[in-house]
Amino acid sequence: MDPTHLHAFILAGGRGERFWPLSTFARPKQFTTLFGGTPLIAQAVGRLEGLVPPANIRVITSADLVAATREALPALPPANIVGEPVGRDTAAAVALACGLLRRDDPEGVALVLPADPLIGDVPAFRAVLADVADCVAREPAIGVVGIAPTYPATGYGYIECGEPLPSPRTPLRRARRFVEKPDLPTARAYLQTGAYVWNAGIFVWRADVMEAAFRAHAPEWLPLLARPDARDALYPTLPKRSIDYAVMEHCGDLVVAAGDFGWDDVGSLPALARQFPADPAGNVAIAPTYALDATGNIVAAEGDPRATALLGVRGLIVVHTPKATLVCAQEHAQNLKALVATLPPELR
Amino acid sequence: MDPTHLHAFILAGGRGERFWPLSTFARPKQFTTLFGGTPLIAQAVGRLEGLVPPANIRVITSADLVAATREALPALPPANIVGEPVGRDTAAAVALACGLLRRDDPEGVALVLPADPLIGDVPAFRAVLADVADCVAREPAIGVVGIAPTYPATGYGYIECGEPLPSPRTPLRRARRFVEKPDLPTARAYLQTGAYVWNAGIFVWRADVMEAAFRAHAPEWLPLLARPDARDALYPTLPKRSIDYAVMEHCGDLVVAAGDFGWDDVGSLPALARQFPADPAGNVAIAPTYALDATGNIVAAEGDPRATALLGVRGLIVVHTPKATLVCAQEHAQNLKALVATLPPELR
Repeated sequence: MDPTHLHAFILAGGRGERFWPLSTFARPKQFTTLFGGTPLIAQAVGRLEGLVPPANIRVITSADLVAATREALPALPPANIVGEPVGRDTAAAVALACGLLRRDDPEGVALVLPADPLIGDVPAFRAVLADVADCVAREPAIGVVGIAPTYPATGYGYIECGEPLPSPRTPLRRARRFVEKPDLPTARAYLQTGAYVWNAGIFVWRADVMEAAFRAHAPEWLPLLARPDARDALYPTLPKRSIDYAVMEHCGDLVVAAGDFGWDDVGSLPALARQFPADPAGNVAIAPTYALDATGNIVAAEGDPRATALLGVRGLIVVHTPKATLVCAQEHAQNLKALVATLPPELR
Repeated sequence: MDPTHLHAFILAGGRGERFWPLSTFARPKQFTTLFGGTPLIAQAVGRLEGLVPPANIRVITSADLVAATREALPALPPANIVGEPVGRDTAAAVALACGLLRRDDPEGVALVLPADPLIGDVPAFRAVLADVADCVAREPAIGVVGIAPTYPATGYGYIECGEPLPSPRTPLRRARRFVEKPDLPTARAYLQTGAYVWNAGIFVWRADVMEAAFRAHAPEWLPLLARPDARDALYPTLPKRSIDYAVMEHCGDLVVAAGDFGWDDVGSLPALARQFPADPAGNVAIAPTYALDATGNIVAAEGDPRATALLGVRGLIVVHTPKATLVCAQEHAQNLKALVATLPPELR
């Protein structure tokens, strides 16, 4: 396809509560520079270089984060940072993206990408996106870039793949169904069949095809799609729903690519251990750390140069920011959201 | 005795390594304001009010801490903060005190007091000191104020008490022997006999009696005793030894009082739990703390207003200062000194 018609919509509406205190309401996860020194949102934009023209890259985020997002992304036209007046999950964001694309480039193809995953192999990532975009430019299908699973994860939804499609480079298959986060035995079975991929929220579509999908399965979102500039009035009237649940799970014509490009959503703090090496004592020290009789711990800090000394502790996550320190048993990390809910607003 | 001849020598030569990071080399434990908002050294001086005239209160500390100590004790004459050129443990400090007393008030009685214990019942403390001072002003004995034990502590040395002496208010007894830190069964046995007190490093003596004791048991310290102003030259020649080991354990004529005035040396971080109440979740929060599924933890901070969030952890000690955070399993707290030894000098 003509690359000038390729567009990207980066969805940056989340608050990253499972990543507190590195992620806070006022400065969510996409702004962290813990991974490689630049904000995740800037990395998300940067890795599209050479694939999507900067003028075609838009970020959809919370209205209160528009200014900070523009500051983090000086290479993008300020108008390309689009604010949502209230959070309404990904169905509204995709409808808004579809409306903007229909208005600005009705023949264009959209990549919908989450703001905060890490991608280890950027050329492979770009190749898969380009191939899926080529496919959906020709075919009336919605493309999904799933992630080839590397372990029986229970924290992601899966997509079951069906018959293969002819494609020159990236293997593409029809999608059979979306499935919710499985339990461990089910996830193990999925992994063994080789027919399942993780749903990473990466979608590729033409405006007319996505509009038809909304019309068929989620007509409540059509007014927003028709009038994206009226979003301040329309958003509050919309239900809070994911695009998977509102549209994708009901679509018959989905094309899936199994991406294998070192994807990691670093969705929660224990995931830090996947991105940073352990020291000889078995601790992952992403901040100055001194340890005695301590192993299996993760120590991280952002904006806080303090030293951490660990004595006789195991399996802890210790995270510092200028305002707060979290000390968490790794096996309790899944309850972080509940803890954050108890904090006063200025700490959240 | 004539109260104008009562003197106090507060020994503030320790570095409080079992209290790191609240105690550091540059700002040891006696400066912490965690207990009641004023430095421990100021509390040590303050509780002598009405007993010892300020002009008679001297602090013996490390030369590098003289300026900070003078600042913390504006009510004392600056010359009363006496610096030791190098640390030589308490034998040298007591010899220096004895030399100063002999020079300035040969008829005086000295109270030797450690800088950093907490005293819950100050009037009772003063009464015991006054009574022991009265006794040693008359008798050629060294007075020791031991602590009536409240549990079978294994972290203190003990003094075995013998026959009672006539005394109007505080019961006094002859000391039978000094014993090293016992194991737990021995400590339990000591507690049951009622004849043992904790050795808290509180001594009361006349200059002539203490000089005679040095002469009999520790003559190496006599040059310092004779020429306290030559301490810069003499200290480096002296062995590093405690006054207990050098003198007290060998003295035949010791008078012991069993003090019962809410003494707590808060010698190590777990002792914080004795001085501060636990919250309903079972955590001792001496700093802003939010906890979920966490109990039996101690959180403290000094000079650092950060919040601490605890998730799923038990039995930890978390301590913040502006430079460092310690995360320590309580049952490993006795190894804190070894951890501190591994830290770079600027953190110790």
